[in-house]
Amino acid sequence: MGDQETPAATNPKMQVMLGVSHSIQGYPKPSISSRNALNWILTKLVRQSCKKEYKILILHVQVPDQDGFEDMDSVYAAGSDVKTQQRKEEKQGLALLEYFVKQCNEAEVDCEAWLSEGDPKLVICKEAKEKHPDLLVLGSRGLGTIQRIFIGGSSSYCSEHAACPVVIIRRDPDETPYDPMDD
Amino acid sequence: MGDQETPAATNPKMQVMLGVSHSIQGYPKPSISSRNALNWILTKLVRQSCKKEYKILILHVQVPDQDGFEDMDSVYAAGSDVKTQQRKEEKQGLALLEYFVKQCNEAEVDCEAWLSEGDPKLVICKEAKEKHPDLLVLGSRGLGTIQRIFIGGSSSYCSEHAACPVVIIRRDPDETPYDPMDD
Repeated sequence: MGDQETPAATNPKMQVMLGVSHSIQGYPKPSISSRNALNWILTKLVRQSCKKEYKILILHVQVPDQDGFEDMDSVYAAGSDVKTQQRKEEKQGLALLEYFVKQCNEAEVDCEAWLSEGDPKLVICKEAKEKHPDLLVLGSRGLGTIQRIFIGGSSSYCSEHAACPVVIIRRDPDETPYDPMDD
Repeated sequence: MGDQETPAATNPKMQVMLGVSHSIQGYPKPSISSRNALNWILTKLVRQSCKKEYKILILHVQVPDQDGFEDMDSVYAAGSDVKTQQRKEEKQGLALLEYFVKQCNEAEVDCEAWLSEGDPKLVICKEAKEKHPDLLVLGSRGLGTIQRIFIGGSSSYCSEHAACPVVIIRRDPDETPYDPMDD
């Protein structure tokens, strides 16, 4: 595409929202399903000649009760401990987002990334309503009980309730690691 | 994109399969939801500068028991009547496909179209398995009892069972016609 062509001027960029989660091993490792989802966006949707026509909105939703205070007893935690822990959480969340932002930068695709907090499925739908992307992409690794706390478990809900078209990138069964901790 | 650039050579075209249905009024009028779905593909996915990178695979599944013999009593139908009716059905199905092919031609996007027969949700999944498109797009108009025989009623099933990523283009409630017969 020549630089003189600026389709974005007449035809705004396609905004693709991507919900990402960390691996079962915890931060900052990204989950296989989230990596797959970004990979699908970059290789299938965003083509070599279409890079300038896309913007990827990367969202990671942190679940405080599940992820936030695993190393401490929240009943006895002092206010300052909670704050320190929150900062630690935020830092880890940002480190996760960094992985995905780096992938977009390397692929030369415009992106923005942000953290949010709450029930992933509800927050994703809320953010989708506010940002109204053209497409919401979520990875799915199949719904194990433990995994339901991650985005994977939220994909069906979002598929039904999000205010924009949703595509779920399901993992190939071959990609399921033998040890779930490698997930 | 200059003609000297042929990304398709190194990066094959993105194949987008689209299941289309006719209006409740019958052939050859396309349903609003199918028109919406194609419109989404052309305006959102296939960008002005990305036309050469996409191929749209348009499938219409005919339901013989529901659509095929509405004008005749099948118990008393002679073999030749059935054949004539089948030919009429096929012709109507092709006329429906023609609408969508014309849209793709006007948008200068490569496409192919074909008819199939059976339960739409099962046939769509079967064809998706055979053609393995990169994305399956289906329109949805909400699941009225009568509408379940059309593609709209098949979208949730395909979303769960198709062997490729699926995106459902739901109709804006404002687009629902006051008279269902205009659907």
